[in-house]
Amino acid sequence: MDKKVLLSHGSGGKLTHDLIAGTIYPSLANPMLAQMDDAAVFEINGKVAFTTDSFVIHPLFFPGGDIGKLAICGTINDLAVVGAKPLYLSLALIIEEGLPMQDLERVMESIKNVSNETGVQVVTGDTKVVNHGSADKLFINTAGIGLVPSGVQISGTKACPGDKIILSGPIGEHGLAIMAQRAGLRLKIQIESDCAPLNSLTAEMLEYADSIHCMRDPTRGGLATTLNEMAKQSQVSFRIFEDRLPIKEAVVSACEMLGLDPLYVANEGKLIAIVNAEKADDILNKMRKNPYGTESVIIGEVEAENPGRVVLQTRLGALRIINMLSGELLPRIC
Amino acid sequence: MDKKVLLSHGSGGKLTHDLIAGTIYPSLANPMLAQMDDAAVFEINGKVAFTTDSFVIHPLFFPGGDIGKLAICGTINDLAVVGAKPLYLSLALIIEEGLPMQDLERVMESIKNVSNETGVQVVTGDTKVVNHGSADKLFINTAGIGLVPSGVQISGTKACPGDKIILSGPIGEHGLAIMAQRAGLRLKIQIESDCAPLNSLTAEMLEYADSIHCMRDPTRGGLATTLNEMAKQSQVSFRIFEDRLPIKEAVVSACEMLGLDPLYVANEGKLIAIVNAEKADDILNKMRKNPYGTESVIIGEVEAENPGRVVLQTRLGALRIINMLSGELLPRIC
Repeated sequence: MDKKVLLSHGSGGKLTHDLIAGTIYPSLANPMLAQMDDAAVFEINGKVAFTTDSFVIHPLFFPGGDIGKLAICGTINDLAVVGAKPLYLSLALIIEEGLPMQDLERVMESIKNVSNETGVQVVTGDTKVVNHGSADKLFINTAGIGLVPSGVQISGTKACPGDKIILSGPIGEHGLAIMAQRAGLRLKIQIESDCAPLNSLTAEMLEYADSIHCMRDPTRGGLATTLNEMAKQSQVSFRIFEDRLPIKEAVVSACEMLGLDPLYVANEGKLIAIVNAEKADDILNKMRKNPYGTESVIIGEVEAENPGRVVLQTRLGALRIINMLSGELLPRIC
Repeated sequence: MDKKVLLSHGSGGKLTHDLIAGTIYPSLANPMLAQMDDAAVFEINGKVAFTTDSFVIHPLFFPGGDIGKLAICGTINDLAVVGAKPLYLSLALIIEEGLPMQDLERVMESIKNVSNETGVQVVTGDTKVVNHGSADKLFINTAGIGLVPSGVQISGTKACPGDKIILSGPIGEHGLAIMAQRAGLRLKIQIESDCAPLNSLTAEMLEYADSIHCMRDPTRGGLATTLNEMAKQSQVSFRIFEDRLPIKEAVVSACEMLGLDPLYVANEGKLIAIVNAEKADDILNKMRKNPYGTESVIIGEVEAENPGRVVLQTRLGALRIINMLSGELLPRIC
């Protein structure tokens, strides 16, 4: 009942094999992983996208998800927002000695569920165990490979003056779900993380591939930081309209209580798309039909003046410059 | 002078960008990484190998290498031993708050050196910072992509009775270098880690691709564990001759002092190749011409009886069954 991960589970020897065969492999089972060679081998032809992310979120389990779901969705989303169809993932676990085996099983179960939902398989992996006190329970790294359909040219460098900026739904939910849990806040309405895989949404959007210039998921640093990155990369400026920004009431209240600005709070199931103005409404309608894009809205537009700048036009018409996050708002949010 | 990594360097905001631009990116600089999108995109056609490894070695710096060199070599080697030409790597850092910036710079410098030597580029990455006490200084994950030339079919499942087993050089050096340092052993001759990239060696061996059935690098768990894995995968048995096993005198003495069996000690710059007997000498000669294979020897042969078993034939002719490592010999050796 109270089985824990031991240091010897990380030896590379028999106990490592037992841990993998007993607890890790069953949730991932697929012929490529079953091969158990040092690398997975598969045929691939075309433009390939490759990305990586480590996840160090605290706590491991939170309303709306856990570190396993987050690790799979995070890497799938990084592939999805460059226009790739995610194909294969790697999964590398760094486990602190003493982690309850049940926790590991729960994380693996949740990895299995997202993998099944998205059809993206874990084909290679690694497991390390470090002594008690040398890590905090569990860190996960995922890397991912996807295939970019020919003709797709999406990059943070391609925003053009006149483009519209679409956001796929309300912001701040992931960060607030974590912070509220850490702070022990009792909220009338519990905030759940928006953690979700966005590959079906982006796949449908690619019907309009020619008109999609940039896509990115506003994770650490929030919407404000991600917009700043893209404005700098593309050497344009963005104007965002405060009255169009979707933020749930519960997030607004929790932000007030905690003194946080939702523009800087992490999201894990949202994307920003910067698109040709003529096709913006078509793309928006397409997005709203996908379960992960029902609340999509056009939040702003791209301008040529003051390259690199992001401004928020408030409800009263004033302009507020929105900078990149400086300092640390929410450590270990992903 | 005493700059340290701060928690806010992991925020995803301005300080993260500064850390990446100032300390991490300069060592890796290449056009694909410069793009700074969520994923690197490149053209690739054919059979692709994909692998991942996390590195949690303690201490970060050791005779013969450091965690940076190890992280790049480790993933390059996992690609090399399935017969792939390593092309691209991801690099994900989990940094403990307070890590001296100088240590990070030293690790990045060493990553740059192996990357330059091997021509394998880091094209995508991630940086996380966790609070003091939640990790031990620095953990690194690398994932890698390589291209398997057509006709190459190397796998742990393909050993055949009659095949010869080649080892590319003396064993036990990596593990002993680390253990001697941790234990503060004063050795007459310092043992250096064998940490090295094996992709040039395997590339040259592939002239005999048809005759190479299995390759693997005997890392955690050592030669004994790796041989056991392959014997089980291929459902054959291996006979290893003790008098042919290359082990340096300094390693033998240190093993005696520490009570370790060199067969179970980790290597980071060696490979085992299981090859068609007729071509074994040709392959051996080829290997000995490469700087990382000069001490290659045929250490044993593949037999049909007792599938899954590995036996060591001692100098006196006795047979000793060699099992997989059980328990933990050397925690955090890689």
